[in-house]
Amino acid sequence: MTVTAPAGFEAAGIAAGIKRSGALDLAVVVNRGPAQQAAVVFTANRAQANPILWSKEAAKDGLVSAVVLNSGGANCFTGPEGFQVVHRTAEAAASALGVAAGDVLVCSTGLIGEQLDGEVLEEGVLSAVARLGADDGSGDDAARAIMTTDTKPKTVIVEGAGWRIGGMAKGAGMLAPGLATMLVVLTTDAVLDAGALDRALRNATRVSFDRLDSDGCMSTNDQVTLLSSGASGVVPDEAEFADALARACLDLAAQLQADAEGASHDITIEVRGAVTEDDAVEVGRSVARNNLFKAAIFGNDPNWGRVLAAIGTTTAPFDPYLVDVSMNGVRVCHAGRPDRPRDEVDLAPRATHVLIELHNGPATATILTNDLTHDYVHENSAYAS
Amino acid sequence: MTVTAPAGFEAAGIAAGIKRSGALDLAVVVNRGPAQQAAVVFTANRAQANPILWSKEAAKDGLVSAVVLNSGGANCFTGPEGFQVVHRTAEAAASALGVAAGDVLVCSTGLIGEQLDGEVLEEGVLSAVARLGADDGSGDDAARAIMTTDTKPKTVIVEGAGWRIGGMAKGAGMLAPGLATMLVVLTTDAVLDAGALDRALRNATRVSFDRLDSDGCMSTNDQVTLLSSGASGVVPDEAEFADALARACLDLAAQLQADAEGASHDITIEVRGAVTEDDAVEVGRSVARNNLFKAAIFGNDPNWGRVLAAIGTTTAPFDPYLVDVSMNGVRVCHAGRPDRPRDEVDLAPRATHVLIELHNGPATATILTNDLTHDYVHENSAYAS
Repeated sequence: MTVTAPAGFEAAGIAAGIKRSGALDLAVVVNRGPAQQAAVVFTANRAQANPILWSKEAAKDGLVSAVVLNSGGANCFTGPEGFQVVHRTAEAAASALGVAAGDVLVCSTGLIGEQLDGEVLEEGVLSAVARLGADDGSGDDAARAIMTTDTKPKTVIVEGAGWRIGGMAKGAGMLAPGLATMLVVLTTDAVLDAGALDRALRNATRVSFDRLDSDGCMSTNDQVTLLSSGASGVVPDEAEFADALARACLDLAAQLQADAEGASHDITIEVRGAVTEDDAVEVGRSVARNNLFKAAIFGNDPNWGRVLAAIGTTTAPFDPYLVDVSMNGVRVCHAGRPDRPRDEVDLAPRATHVLIELHNGPATATILTNDLTHDYVHENSAYAS
Repeated sequence: MTVTAPAGFEAAGIAAGIKRSGALDLAVVVNRGPAQQAAVVFTANRAQANPILWSKEAAKDGLVSAVVLNSGGANCFTGPEGFQVVHRTAEAAASALGVAAGDVLVCSTGLIGEQLDGEVLEEGVLSAVARLGADDGSGDDAARAIMTTDTKPKTVIVEGAGWRIGGMAKGAGMLAPGLATMLVVLTTDAVLDAGALDRALRNATRVSFDRLDSDGCMSTNDQVTLLSSGASGVVPDEAEFADALARACLDLAAQLQADAEGASHDITIEVRGAVTEDDAVEVGRSVARNNLFKAAIFGNDPNWGRVLAAIGTTTAPFDPYLVDVSMNGVRVCHAGRPDRPRDEVDLAPRATHVLIELHNGPATATILTNDLTHDYVHENSAYAS
């Protein structure tokens, strides 16, 4: 089901031969309408892959008929030839679907700096389009076809009052800043114009994917796409839709966190008592990116000194001698000084909760991250092989 | 020799019993004059240890008679009791040396959040002062007494025209932003006033310790102290002295890099063709802090895509399609596209050179960093044990 759960959508996932392993590597998601409204959020990285350059232009008018996604190559830093491959891919999908190439988005993920074979992509798109509507597993195949180092597909369905939101995501690692090496497609059969979709999507990504910061690295290929078919005929309450979309994105973000490369702890960093929400985010992110803190959590060491040292590198207003830090419910630091003994903290569970209370204001934010492990180092040192 | 190489200085390093191992853990460096000019640079971290709070005040008048340094505890986030320990330490040294407590700096390194025993510190200071001038090895003992996870002491001597600079440093890990978990004492017998010392020290740290970024983490305890005894009677050319001091700091920085916790590669990131020097530093630092790049180098993988992706996260002006990247002399990326095959790059040597040519302006900067290794994760997950 996933992206095909809402009415009006079809999908397919096939093995186009991009991956040498023969695994699924190409997905198509098609919006059969009646509406074809869309909103898209792109990576904030200024080094952008060819599919990002293409999709930004294609999404500008808020109309999208289809999304083609491939794993097995990022098509980034591949020059004009790489852009030609994207163009050819979009043209192939447009021609097979009877839509305009300018209404087809393209997403790619995999290694940077390797050329994709345009012919393989084109044939893959034709095969995928030929399979549309073939069977119930098509949405799941699509979710599998976009996986790289992911160990499992990530999908979500949220039910509204007469409408649905479906989604799929990939991105086991490099989950970061603005967005992660993360491809996400969300679909809905609710009736919403492009403006409302855009507001809902920006709000949802701000509190979900933007607060998932696995390793501090930002990808060149991140793209989150929201498509609306309007096929339910139901016009939802905009706030209710926005809330449902945020829940869908939070669910996918948690799945991405749980499958982060080599991680042994899923760390939720909750910051309370900041002056502003931006301050709370900055504090949480600085801790999430602190390699010493992340290595300590890997070693089940509730090293709160590293938390405070990380906070000290931010520009957020705080007084070290007001700060409390709790780990998994045990307050190890009170007012910037040692409180409960470290050995009372049980960091054996994968789920790790770090509560930072700044006692400096009303604002809160939660950042999701992972620990720094031997497996992280291994997987990312061997990725190219 | 080290800090005792210039005339007018004495030092001692002893085992005060702060470290349970019985290793050397307390050092005293004394300036016997005739001058007692000093300049100090402190961590930019806003979470500052008690010895930093003390030393900042003590150094304000530009007069420093002695520095007491201990390993075995950072005395950070230890509250008012921790500050009392610093005060007591300075008073003990002042009383034993016949100087003012306000002219004694204190530096500490070790775990955060653990109380130091003031009595142990006081007795240690008295023992150390009693050994001053005892033998030739005193400078080396001092350099050993400030080690934590360092595998070797770091010292330097630079000869001027009738004057000398000596130095010692510690900090095998957490080398970072503004400064690193790094304690450095530099001594000179050249005749310079506090203003000239300050200018020379800020210039020297800017191009040395500030550009050493092993793991992106900033310590709460960093302190670089420069003491001048004037005992040579020689007034040096200010530019010549500044240059010699920068060379001393670069030498110590290279020693710190070479001994970084768990590192298997010393990576020199040279950025050329930036619009401004600040841009070049930002670009180099973003690459130095990119865990994916650092893990790739550990795996001997010349993954230039991760270099470009890291540059894309900066605010520095650049055009991805102008950028060249070379690793150990092989240009693997030209104009933002693949150039020489990756397998031509030999990353087996510990010394690794990454050249980033932005072709966008005249400015350059070099950042020193390390790779991200299994041993880094291990050492930092087990540090507290």
